[in-house]
Amino acid sequence: MSEVLEKAKKAKAAAAQLAKLSSSVKDRALEMMAQALEDQTDFLIQANKPDVEAAVRNGKPKAFIDRLTLNEKRIKDMADGLRVVKSLPDPVGEVVAMWKRPNGLIIGQRRVPLGVVGIIYESRPNVTADAAGLCLKAGNAVILRGGSEAIQSNKAIVKVLAQAAYEAGIPEGAIQLIEDTDRASARQLMRLNGLVDVLIPRGGAGLIKAVVEEATVPVIETGVGNCHVYVDGECDQDMAVNIIVNAKTQRPGVCNAAETLLVDKRIAAEFLPKAVRALREKGVEIRGCEKTLEIIPDAVPATPEDWDTEYLDYILAVKVVDGVDEAIRHIEMHGTGHSEAIVTSNYFTAQKFLEEVDAAAVYVNASTRFTDGFEFGFGAEIGISTQKLHARGPMGLKELTTIKYVIYGNGQIRE
Amino acid sequence: MSEVLEKAKKAKAAAAQLAKLSSSVKDRALEMMAQALEDQTDFLIQANKPDVEAAVRNGKPKAFIDRLTLNEKRIKDMADGLRVVKSLPDPVGEVVAMWKRPNGLIIGQRRVPLGVVGIIYESRPNVTADAAGLCLKAGNAVILRGGSEAIQSNKAIVKVLAQAAYEAGIPEGAIQLIEDTDRASARQLMRLNGLVDVLIPRGGAGLIKAVVEEATVPVIETGVGNCHVYVDGECDQDMAVNIIVNAKTQRPGVCNAAETLLVDKRIAAEFLPKAVRALREKGVEIRGCEKTLEIIPDAVPATPEDWDTEYLDYILAVKVVDGVDEAIRHIEMHGTGHSEAIVTSNYFTAQKFLEEVDAAAVYVNASTRFTDGFEFGFGAEIGISTQKLHARGPMGLKELTTIKYVIYGNGQIRE
Repeated sequence: MSEVLEKAKKAKAAAAQLAKLSSSVKDRALEMMAQALEDQTDFLIQANKPDVEAAVRNGKPKAFIDRLTLNEKRIKDMADGLRVVKSLPDPVGEVVAMWKRPNGLIIGQRRVPLGVVGIIYESRPNVTADAAGLCLKAGNAVILRGGSEAIQSNKAIVKVLAQAAYEAGIPEGAIQLIEDTDRASARQLMRLNGLVDVLIPRGGAGLIKAVVEEATVPVIETGVGNCHVYVDGECDQDMAVNIIVNAKTQRPGVCNAAETLLVDKRIAAEFLPKAVRALREKGVEIRGCEKTLEIIPDAVPATPEDWDTEYLDYILAVKVVDGVDEAIRHIEMHGTGHSEAIVTSNYFTAQKFLEEVDAAAVYVNASTRFTDGFEFGFGAEIGISTQKLHARGPMGLKELTTIKYVIYGNGQIRE
Repeated sequence: MSEVLEKAKKAKAAAAQLAKLSSSVKDRALEMMAQALEDQTDFLIQANKPDVEAAVRNGKPKAFIDRLTLNEKRIKDMADGLRVVKSLPDPVGEVVAMWKRPNGLIIGQRRVPLGVVGIIYESRPNVTADAAGLCLKAGNAVILRGGSEAIQSNKAIVKVLAQAAYEAGIPEGAIQLIEDTDRASARQLMRLNGLVDVLIPRGGAGLIKAVVEEATVPVIETGVGNCHVYVDGECDQDMAVNIIVNAKTQRPGVCNAAETLLVDKRIAAEFLPKAVRALREKGVEIRGCEKTLEIIPDAVPATPEDWDTEYLDYILAVKVVDGVDEAIRHIEMHGTGHSEAIVTSNYFTAQKFLEEVDAAAVYVNASTRFTDGFEFGFGAEIGISTQKLHARGPMGLKELTTIKYVIYGNGQIRE
């Protein structure tokens, strides 16, 4: 039996046990897992070294190596992340609704774990601990399949977590890593219908596309964000400058950062010089449409590709549009359904934007950077869904569960 | 441009309009669609004839021809079905939850349509009207892709419905049929990510498997039901006989009918003769395990395949088990996650079964036949989901929607 199949079967068996565990057992395990990460800091840092060395040898970019590197602070952060998850309410067992039918049947919707969750991700070892903690708290078995670049780190993290969980009374097979980092192992995991209940890919657009294309197991798409800020003709322009600067530069490498600024032509000549000055102070390169270039002559001319590019960098595409309708059409054509914002002081324009823009999160007068499980008040997140099924936007613990109908009868049969 | 791509683009454009429509426009359209079906009864019956004739010519089974045939009564039923949908509350626009964050952001979850729903189905023309009505009420554009055997009937039904909807103010493209019934057209529809938001296959196990295998668009699996009734050693045996007879014979051809009876060995010798007598009176063939054969010597010996077969017929597999634990294990191994029932008078056994059986609907002392949108009180259903993502069990109007986050700010930026 292949490694993937063997571990999936173990995970399925573990999931049946996990579903029955009380919150107190799960919480004790999360605390012991956090403690174990801290206790084994040296072991984890040692295990991380060959991954980092290989990345350096292979000439990986600096940002890549930075994300890959484990140090005392990062391990402490992983441990604290597990403690945050511990502190959140257990979603399992909640009765979402219950009603009585005319024939006396009592029908309840009870929240239960999804079962076996597969996480396919790239080279950030902290995903390993985050995903393991969230899946455990929601009563799921997790199968982690990280990238080859972080394999030694992931093996060490999973070893520490699985051992601590087991000692706390969590069944074996609840937290597993696929050690085979061949493409074939990921592909096999994506097609284990009946053993794996859902796949959550976390990473770049290429990874997510590959999983969507190849998986037969249901997938929750996450992350790709070509986000827009539209500055309406009627608005507080200082607020608009603040919001676009924040949305673009507060952390440009993440999915909820803005990539395109749309400006109402009624105020473009007045607003754009102010906005561009503030953006350039933060080091942002401006790529403008023709009308933008008339106002900001030294901007880089935008090509059609710019409207569809998630830069994840200090680059911003800028387009002058004819009011909110053209802004909405542009977003409809180029957006990825992640986070979209309008800055306006007009009530009707705000309502129209909220109503018509089709995205996971639609903002009025706030930065797109708030689309995030912590900022929404969920305490933690496993990713940000950009699809419409099951979960949309930041996914917390509830989104790692499903419901089952429990029906109490006293002999009812159907006429 | 292919027919599928052209219609999908039209559907996407229509969906943006549909999302904004008021309930009163949608309800007026549903009434006019119902009326149009009734007014055009003769046209529909004429259109149905070549389909029925072809089915007879091709030697299709009687049940198949029956499902395919349209008559005055069936057309009236379709029209009434649309009126029921009209009478249901509009799910769109409901604010599921709204809260205020410490920074003053007001975050709301607003229920919105899914967008474009693809329905891939077989030869029941009534699915055409049902699906069109439910999708419209939930604000979705629908692309119907029925089987070749009903193509003339489906073309006529969609023509009547789309025309009536259009006259009532529904945008063109809201209700469309793929007229090309080649496999390639279905395959293309399954891979239109970005244009189609969800696929719901309705039909036999083969169809559903094909869609799950080939689709890259998210799929909601429906329908396959290998359902069990477990009769516990402690129970009201008359109730148990009633329930198994009802679950097996009230309508054997549907997914929530029981296919296997599990009997606690403590009462098998007493219970089985009574149950089998009642079942045989209804014409049910018994296929028994070895222990069943000791009690019912003239039963057909069951083969391993019987435990995994959805007969959809007057056949019942019977197995004697060692109490609720073996029953749960058997269901775990052979069930399809649809509907499972226990008959017991023991409180702890009932709780254990509800807790541990992993299925969309788990019953205590009631027939599995209740798993149905009407019986659950949803008024109507588009199918019964046997997967865990997005929807589980009967899917009503709410399951044809998603949420989007609407966020009201007053200049918030992220620190």
